[in-house]
Amino acid sequence: MCAQLLSTQPYKGTRDFYPDEMRLRNWFFGKIRHTLETSAFDEYNGPMLESLELYAAKSGEEIATKQTYNFVDHGNRMLAIRPEMTPTVARMVAGKMNDLSFPLRWFSIPNMYRYEATQRGRLREFWQLNVDIFGCDTYEADLEVIISAIRILKAFGADESMFTVRINNRRFFNDVIAAIAGTDAEGSRLVSKVIDRKNKVTREAYEKDLTALGLSAEQIARIDSLYEMGVEDATAICPDSVGACELRSLFAALRQIGLDRYCVFDFGIIRGLDYYTGTVFEVFDNAPENNRAMFGGGRYDNLVGLFVKNAKVSGVGYGMGDVTLENFLVTHKLIPDTFDTDVKVLVTRFDDVPYEKYLTLTDSLREAGITSSLYLGSKKFGKQIDYAVKGQYTHVVIMGGSELEAGVVKVKNLETREESTVSATKLTAFFGA
Amino acid sequence: MCAQLLSTQPYKGTRDFYPDEMRLRNWFFGKIRHTLETSAFDEYNGPMLESLELYAAKSGEEIATKQTYNFVDHGNRMLAIRPEMTPTVARMVAGKMNDLSFPLRWFSIPNMYRYEATQRGRLREFWQLNVDIFGCDTYEADLEVIISAIRILKAFGADESMFTVRINNRRFFNDVIAAIAGTDAEGSRLVSKVIDRKNKVTREAYEKDLTALGLSAEQIARIDSLYEMGVEDATAICPDSVGACELRSLFAALRQIGLDRYCVFDFGIIRGLDYYTGTVFEVFDNAPENNRAMFGGGRYDNLVGLFVKNAKVSGVGYGMGDVTLENFLVTHKLIPDTFDTDVKVLVTRFDDVPYEKYLTLTDSLREAGITSSLYLGSKKFGKQIDYAVKGQYTHVVIMGGSELEAGVVKVKNLETREESTVSATKLTAFFGA
Repeated sequence: MCAQLLSTQPYKGTRDFYPDEMRLRNWFFGKIRHTLETSAFDEYNGPMLESLELYAAKSGEEIATKQTYNFVDHGNRMLAIRPEMTPTVARMVAGKMNDLSFPLRWFSIPNMYRYEATQRGRLREFWQLNVDIFGCDTYEADLEVIISAIRILKAFGADESMFTVRINNRRFFNDVIAAIAGTDAEGSRLVSKVIDRKNKVTREAYEKDLTALGLSAEQIARIDSLYEMGVEDATAICPDSVGACELRSLFAALRQIGLDRYCVFDFGIIRGLDYYTGTVFEVFDNAPENNRAMFGGGRYDNLVGLFVKNAKVSGVGYGMGDVTLENFLVTHKLIPDTFDTDVKVLVTRFDDVPYEKYLTLTDSLREAGITSSLYLGSKKFGKQIDYAVKGQYTHVVIMGGSELEAGVVKVKNLETREESTVSATKLTAFFGA
Repeated sequence: MCAQLLSTQPYKGTRDFYPDEMRLRNWFFGKIRHTLETSAFDEYNGPMLESLELYAAKSGEEIATKQTYNFVDHGNRMLAIRPEMTPTVARMVAGKMNDLSFPLRWFSIPNMYRYEATQRGRLREFWQLNVDIFGCDTYEADLEVIISAIRILKAFGADESMFTVRINNRRFFNDVIAAIAGTDAEGSRLVSKVIDRKNKVTREAYEKDLTALGLSAEQIARIDSLYEMGVEDATAICPDSVGACELRSLFAALRQIGLDRYCVFDFGIIRGLDYYTGTVFEVFDNAPENNRAMFGGGRYDNLVGLFVKNAKVSGVGYGMGDVTLENFLVTHKLIPDTFDTDVKVLVTRFDDVPYEKYLTLTDSLREAGITSSLYLGSKKFGKQIDYAVKGQYTHVVIMGGSELEAGVVKVKNLETREESTVSATKLTAFFGA
């Protein structure tokens, strides 16, 4: 048909989900969905293709063009495969500003693409959970969002030895710098920029930059000490700061419902300097071999500004990639060996019994809601058993000529190897239906 | 920020799924998944992007380029967003030929894109259920696949007045034409091509073409009569044809399990002339205003030939688009008004009660598995009730200062308007947890 055979490999950075991988993924997303729905979050989704300008407007044309899969359609529109969900959700919220009932509690698990070098935890095609609350300005929404992240990890069996939520607040960050450095707004902004780059430069360069902005060695030391402080000591430096109040309220509420053991205050959490405006947090994997931020988020403003003039909707949320979360679950051995705990029955076949007898039997099992199928084909019994084992069936039903005559079937439990003889009319009851 | 405001419309031919639409979709896909899993089908999925050559090899370069969204990546690879699932699943089966346990019973509900003019039932982004059995040559696999389609529609509440499965067999089709026309293989192929175009040309042109191939008026009339025949009469014309045997066995089996009332033999069902090799079927909507094929499928051979030399894996299956199925459900009023029958509780707030009291209450509901949230913000009670109604909450919990003092809460059922006073410690039990 074709001189050259085609490759069976998926495109670089993407994955094939065979049934085994798909079972894992469905288990995975199922737990996330269930956890969020129990907390009254509503699921949404949007198109895989969006106008490229949506990403260019947020991240700049160059980044948008380089990091997305983008192209021009036959109608000369510049399109991109979504590399993130925020521009889509902003467009959707802006499109129904007057119909939607705020605050919105929304989540989505879209597939998306980024054009990047593939490495551990980074693929070109991935799924990303997005959880956001829109239209609530208080720390209570920040709390809800952080609780949801903790609840998801707990639902997978993770405990406080495995992960830590590191929390800071950008308003507090600005206020405490102003309090220590004695700078005005512009001065504080410049100091923030230096602090933001702290881990990217040498200690010497860091101190030199702060000194150039007028900070004394003592002031620099006071900023250093913030990294060691708990929330009480840190917020005591500028107790009247709105950000300090938010931080204290947030930690008090977490204590109230016993979730404070997963959380610490961390002055080192800053995130995108120009994007976040209040609470910011990152969830760290505590495993020594992988001790880094898995995902994070925070409060941002002016979500819909690109779409609606003079409108303001604040948001707080996070995005969690499926590859990162899966790596975490693997590291901490939180993925069970099998997901199918339910009964799954293979009706085996012998040539001396009419096909329609098997058909009726299988159909009655399905009608009773029992997962089942009839072996297709006419291989030897041993091969049919092999097929059942590989396909993760839990039981096989055996009905040869002698069983048919006696009005019974044999049921073999593939795990315990136990064999039972059951009246054909009581088979569905045998499986508890 | 941006001089020109961006549009809030999604890209042409795609859809935004706000929570209401997403609830419908989750209900929709949930029913399909459950039905197929009960029949022991396994879900799989693959990447959204594939090599363009996968589609070019199947449909020709021109069609593949015109009908897909395709582009060249930074590594100079020609890629396409998948317009269908068959090439992906063929690649996946070919890639693990020796590890997989045949017959495979696979399904998938991928999102895909086609570049086409949008109209009713046709969008550019859609989801398509794909159900296939690979590696079983007998009519039994065809039967399983047809049963699955009927079971899915039945699961939505559709009955035989609403849809009909029209079934033919390509081997029978070839044999019965040879029997009536007395043609050899090549002659039958030419006659088939004329019959395949029957509805696209005038009756006059049709007869003229058949006459040119040597058919008499009587032979043409005998072919005409096939369109009126049931399976018994039609297959009696060439009783020894393998295709006739398959058709008779298929209908006998459908009768055996009471599904024959959804099915008819229809000589007019041909489908892609060069693609299908055995059983073919189409599922028709019986509604007078929409009486047309909703979806169809059949048996095809040589699935993996493009990837593996001299390997043969047969397949039988179908693809069902989400838009088509949704239109069918709307036409027949099979979509319920609400999908959330479960309890969903909004804990309302008053300023005279400390926030942490509400927080603990809400948290205890969630711990008990009851879907619930605490109202975020501090609006008037009436506004909070409005929010609950719009958000499809079923109950609100009311705990003002006097209730707190008495150790009780009030629960209002938003549907019945009934109000109950419940001991705060018995609230989860009140909701049945």
